[in-house]
Amino acid sequence: MCAMSGELTIDIGALKRNYKALDIVSTPDCETACVVKANAYGLGADKCAPALYEAGARSFFVATSEEGAALRSILPQDADIYVLGGLDFGDKQARAGIIPVLNSLAEIEQARKIGNNLPVALHFDTGMNRLGLGEDEAQALYQEPSILESLDVRLVISHFASSEELDNPGNKSQLSRFDEIIERTKPLFPNARYSIANSCGLFLGADHHFDMVRAGIALYGAHPTLLLQGDNPVEPVVSLQVPVLQIRTALKGTSAGYNSTYRFSEDTTLAVVSAGYADGLPRSLSNNGTLYWKGYALPIRGRVSMDAIICDLANVPKEEHPKRGDMIEVFGSSQTLESLATSAGTISHEIVTSLGARYKRVYKHT
Amino acid sequence: MCAMSGELTIDIGALKRNYKALDIVSTPDCETACVVKANAYGLGADKCAPALYEAGARSFFVATSEEGAALRSILPQDADIYVLGGLDFGDKQARAGIIPVLNSLAEIEQARKIGNNLPVALHFDTGMNRLGLGEDEAQALYQEPSILESLDVRLVISHFASSEELDNPGNKSQLSRFDEIIERTKPLFPNARYSIANSCGLFLGADHHFDMVRAGIALYGAHPTLLLQGDNPVEPVVSLQVPVLQIRTALKGTSAGYNSTYRFSEDTTLAVVSAGYADGLPRSLSNNGTLYWKGYALPIRGRVSMDAIICDLANVPKEEHPKRGDMIEVFGSSQTLESLATSAGTISHEIVTSLGARYKRVYKHT
Repeated sequence: MCAMSGELTIDIGALKRNYKALDIVSTPDCETACVVKANAYGLGADKCAPALYEAGARSFFVATSEEGAALRSILPQDADIYVLGGLDFGDKQARAGIIPVLNSLAEIEQARKIGNNLPVALHFDTGMNRLGLGEDEAQALYQEPSILESLDVRLVISHFASSEELDNPGNKSQLSRFDEIIERTKPLFPNARYSIANSCGLFLGADHHFDMVRAGIALYGAHPTLLLQGDNPVEPVVSLQVPVLQIRTALKGTSAGYNSTYRFSEDTTLAVVSAGYADGLPRSLSNNGTLYWKGYALPIRGRVSMDAIICDLANVPKEEHPKRGDMIEVFGSSQTLESLATSAGTISHEIVTSLGARYKRVYKHT
Repeated sequence: MCAMSGELTIDIGALKRNYKALDIVSTPDCETACVVKANAYGLGADKCAPALYEAGARSFFVATSEEGAALRSILPQDADIYVLGGLDFGDKQARAGIIPVLNSLAEIEQARKIGNNLPVALHFDTGMNRLGLGEDEAQALYQEPSILESLDVRLVISHFASSEELDNPGNKSQLSRFDEIIERTKPLFPNARYSIANSCGLFLGADHHFDMVRAGIALYGAHPTLLLQGDNPVEPVVSLQVPVLQIRTALKGTSAGYNSTYRFSEDTTLAVVSAGYADGLPRSLSNNGTLYWKGYALPIRGRVSMDAIICDLANVPKEEHPKRGDMIEVFGSSQTLESLATSAGTISHEIVTSLGARYKRVYKHT
């Protein structure tokens, strides 16, 4: 280990196995699509998307037309690439070979001007008020379906707001609204496929699967059923280790880090590691999070700095103390990504998508 | 505007003026060094460091040897590059032409084996228990200064823990410890220069300046004296705008975003913008932050998603509503970076260093 920054290991084998494990859960005639937006949740779309294609995936979702264009250049032509943010704002180059997910009548109007049997997806909102045609726009569309005449509607989607909450009544209500949308639109686009489930939606039961499920965070190894029952059906994909810059002793009564937010009640040996909030380890881990060394918990003391975190070695027998250059686990075998995210007061999605540019990224093929 | 991601504008002219404004504040024989670690606080070290060199800077600080090596390849040879994380772990290539800041006796021992009059800086901790020789190691060094014989000590530094708090007694205590360190080490390294002040430390008074101040966040436009008195001596450097993906109406009684954390008490027009926590706009802005359009405040409703944020247009007269593709301000003329950071429960440093890779970065030279 020579680099002074952390090492992020991405297990491409696990990613591919996760795809297959999720694909088995879905109903036999349901396609498992892959959400690879935000650079494949921060893990590298250029590496992850081709691996998922190899594992059998043929439909991919990104957020922006720029992400779509980048992915188009690396995936075979029989892979469909959908852009959730919708139609580009006028960049024809970004449009080539990617399928916009139209979210509003304004966008349909824009797509219509392009015409030419443009392949598109349609997004109907069923309960998030985020993207997709609202009830008002859906009704307007049903009244005048001719506005879609010059477009090739390939897919109709919606999105669950709380699918990780098994018993949330919103899931049923969204599902019944989606059923209604299917009923209203099926005659209009007989060739369109339908999809509402994300990673967690997949585990809500077969009646949530329709023609396609869109797997995201579960591909990358975060537990999709944490609030549901049963074992984790996916393997961790990503682990992070960061090197020790210095082992030091803090004297009783002195304090740690900016603004002295932690005071030592006795002489304490510390390991200072080379990673901080500029590397995506949030400042909210200050005095909250825990790193690990040989399975021993190292509580974070004081504020997380931009490039350094102070850890307490009190739980580690002196003869097993790490030394300068040793690699400390942020998440991996001793701590899950979800556990770190919980300590930071957020979700694993925010942690992975924020992982910094300084880490050395190692892709392993298990 | 064609891109579907946001646009981050970095004003290189303002950056250079900020350098000069800070340089004027420091005592005449004090050098103003530039902290350009974490990719120049997220703004692009490859653009910012050469501009700062042009503005007169000759000393630069980075966090890791990798950052040092990258900077060495773009800065003229008369620029000194210091690595705060210390000596590389064995990568000789990364070592060429950069100056490690040695933080511990273990590191001094490692540097000594390289010998050869290696140029180094020494870091003494005076109150953070983060990096730098603690009191115990400092005493050991004073007892046996010969361990530095084969090294060329160019600079001795320490770092304030609470320099933004004008009246914090810790500042005085750190200063007096630093004075003591100078007294003990001056005879040992007669050619070394001394430095303890960061951006805020610069404003604590001339007795804090010594031979060098190390300006960081203030270079990039954040108010270094927010808790001190007087006008902001620096200009904003960075502004961020993100495009509208969709204008929509939320009906009374419906809710916004994941897990329905905001419920609309009346029919409400919303703008959904193309940026989320994957772009470094933290999830802690959920139901907290505000974006701006033509000076009107657009409160964030519901959870910040990975790639989208839902904003309320209630404050905007209907005839001035934005439309799809219009650019909404995240920070810039209507809201400072600090204000957004405060809404997110953090500091501007964490916001800028987390700004995502999807933004188009525009460097302007005013």
